[in-house]
Amino acid sequence: MAADIDEQPAGYDRLLSGEHAEAIARVAAVIAERRPRHVVFTARGTSDHAALYAAYLAEIRLGLPAGLASPSAITVYGARPDLSDALVVGVSQSGGSPDLTEVLRVARASGALTLAVTNAPGSPLAQTAELSVDIAAGHERAVAATKTYTAELLALLMLVEGVRAGDGVLPAEERAALAALPELAERTLADPTPAQLAPRYRFAAQLVTTGRGYAYPTAREAALKLMETSYLPALAFSGADLLHGPLAMTDPDVPVLAVVGSGPGGRSMREVLPRLGERRADVVVVGSADVEVSARMTVPEVDERYAPLLDILPLQRLALALALARGEDPDAPRGLKKVTATM
Amino acid sequence: MAADIDEQPAGYDRLLSGEHAEAIARVAAVIAERRPRHVVFTARGTSDHAALYAAYLAEIRLGLPAGLASPSAITVYGARPDLSDALVVGVSQSGGSPDLTEVLRVARASGALTLAVTNAPGSPLAQTAELSVDIAAGHERAVAATKTYTAELLALLMLVEGVRAGDGVLPAEERAALAALPELAERTLADPTPAQLAPRYRFAAQLVTTGRGYAYPTAREAALKLMETSYLPALAFSGADLLHGPLAMTDPDVPVLAVVGSGPGGRSMREVLPRLGERRADVVVVGSADVEVSARMTVPEVDERYAPLLDILPLQRLALALALARGEDPDAPRGLKKVTATM
Repeated sequence: MAADIDEQPAGYDRLLSGEHAEAIARVAAVIAERRPRHVVFTARGTSDHAALYAAYLAEIRLGLPAGLASPSAITVYGARPDLSDALVVGVSQSGGSPDLTEVLRVARASGALTLAVTNAPGSPLAQTAELSVDIAAGHERAVAATKTYTAELLALLMLVEGVRAGDGVLPAEERAALAALPELAERTLADPTPAQLAPRYRFAAQLVTTGRGYAYPTAREAALKLMETSYLPALAFSGADLLHGPLAMTDPDVPVLAVVGSGPGGRSMREVLPRLGERRADVVVVGSADVEVSARMTVPEVDERYAPLLDILPLQRLALALALARGEDPDAPRGLKKVTATM
Repeated sequence: MAADIDEQPAGYDRLLSGEHAEAIARVAAVIAERRPRHVVFTARGTSDHAALYAAYLAEIRLGLPAGLASPSAITVYGARPDLSDALVVGVSQSGGSPDLTEVLRVARASGALTLAVTNAPGSPLAQTAELSVDIAAGHERAVAATKTYTAELLALLMLVEGVRAGDGVLPAEERAALAALPELAERTLADPTPAQLAPRYRFAAQLVTTGRGYAYPTAREAALKLMETSYLPALAFSGADLLHGPLAMTDPDVPVLAVVGSGPGGRSMREVLPRLGERRADVVVVGSADVEVSARMTVPEVDERYAPLLDILPLQRLALALALARGEDPDAPRGLKKVTATM
């Protein structure tokens, strides 16, 4: 897991340059030309969080309504929604999940433009979709996905910005911002804070993660990593949903990891943090926001749109360090397999 | 909270008869006539679970792609998605949440057909939408929503079936099935099992809830009720997602509440229960499925489409009984207000 985590800056570099970037640009140009009216994502587990990020991007950057579909409507109940106006995107590391493949098959048969985003170009999912993108993350050794998650994020970001450009070719400003990410990721990973913070949670019975907008998928993915590797119940809430009920659960015994950037999503979390303070929660902030809390894992400041590619890095390292501190084996979580087949 | 829970059968009866049913039929007829190409729901907290149920209904019963939108794309990032093909539905007990109202305002301005489903016909949300449905649940006294949740479920079900009928008028068979629900709900509420089971969880440190398809919103809502009233971290997973990671978290110390009916969604849970068994989890099954587990809260058998109107009842009562057993005040959860305003 440590090796997978450390490979992420090189993964960003690989995806941003040469043949992979060109392949993504070609797919983006096809999508732009076909002009879907809305976007439906389908994914499971970690990839579901990458899909959620892409749904925000599609709505905000492309003005396309976007949502996440539950495969079971199609695979369990036999629903046959008319997807002829839609771009249907399956996101999966392995590309081997039968239910996602079935959703793309049904979508394609109903006239949808279909796209698979996977780390396995020869997988059933990639073969079933009309278009496919290879996230080129290389073999992931740990069961807990890390480098394939961020490679999915980056591939989906490049794709959306390519569609926005129209011909798939990113504007110079966008290319420059993206080109800075590998070095920023390297710098983020060099920060010793996550390993220092792990002992803080050694005896925690549970955790809450929260974030809004682009930061919400990061909160969700961080919670999943903590559950998979440290077996801690970790509850992820959007900052707004937290105020609608689960806030009652927080007290001084419940650590909160809040992903707070310095853009609009981060600013909208400013109403949430004081409410957590009233409940005397122990809040650690992850991100570039300059706020006063119990502790911080600082991440270089970038546009909020790029922040998910950096903010998750210290959280992955925290999950790893905490698992080790609790005597667990993060490379082989109990009860899990690398590829999960559900229908 | 006990009084709110007990009023649910009468609430079903009220909504199914006379003026309320006619009002819903009229709204359904307008939607059928306008033929939206897809459905976007927007909601928070408990109402988000009712919206999730309605998204399954829209896909399965109407063949319309349906998804849940995150308000923050519009309210925080200023996204202006083109919703001119969409039916955009805001679901909210109070109808007072500024962010949902803003989403409906933007959607209506972009040409969407907009609908508010609320317990407050004069609310900003209802006033902003072109169409509105009154769930007529009466004043809800407890902060934790119970009777407004099931009234939202039923109103959305009647609406979807009315759209399916085309003219809003439900087929005789559907009317008969719905007419049986008040008495079935009464019978479900008379079961003493939830209060008997509460001591089992008196010292639980956390809970997991799970279900698939129509039962997944029930699992989500049960988890929220347990968090709001007993301050227990309760994690809800679709049965499929549970196998994709969080399964590692379950062990003999983690109680699992599995919502398992006897239809397709329930059958698809049959692959999940043995995996929980391997991890020696303590599984209590809620629903009509006949499976061997630690304990059961049996609910009368109905088509899975109607099961969410019954399955949640013993879970609400369990949340109430557990809160009382733990010395909490379920009518006034710490840190919460009845109406939560987020933007």
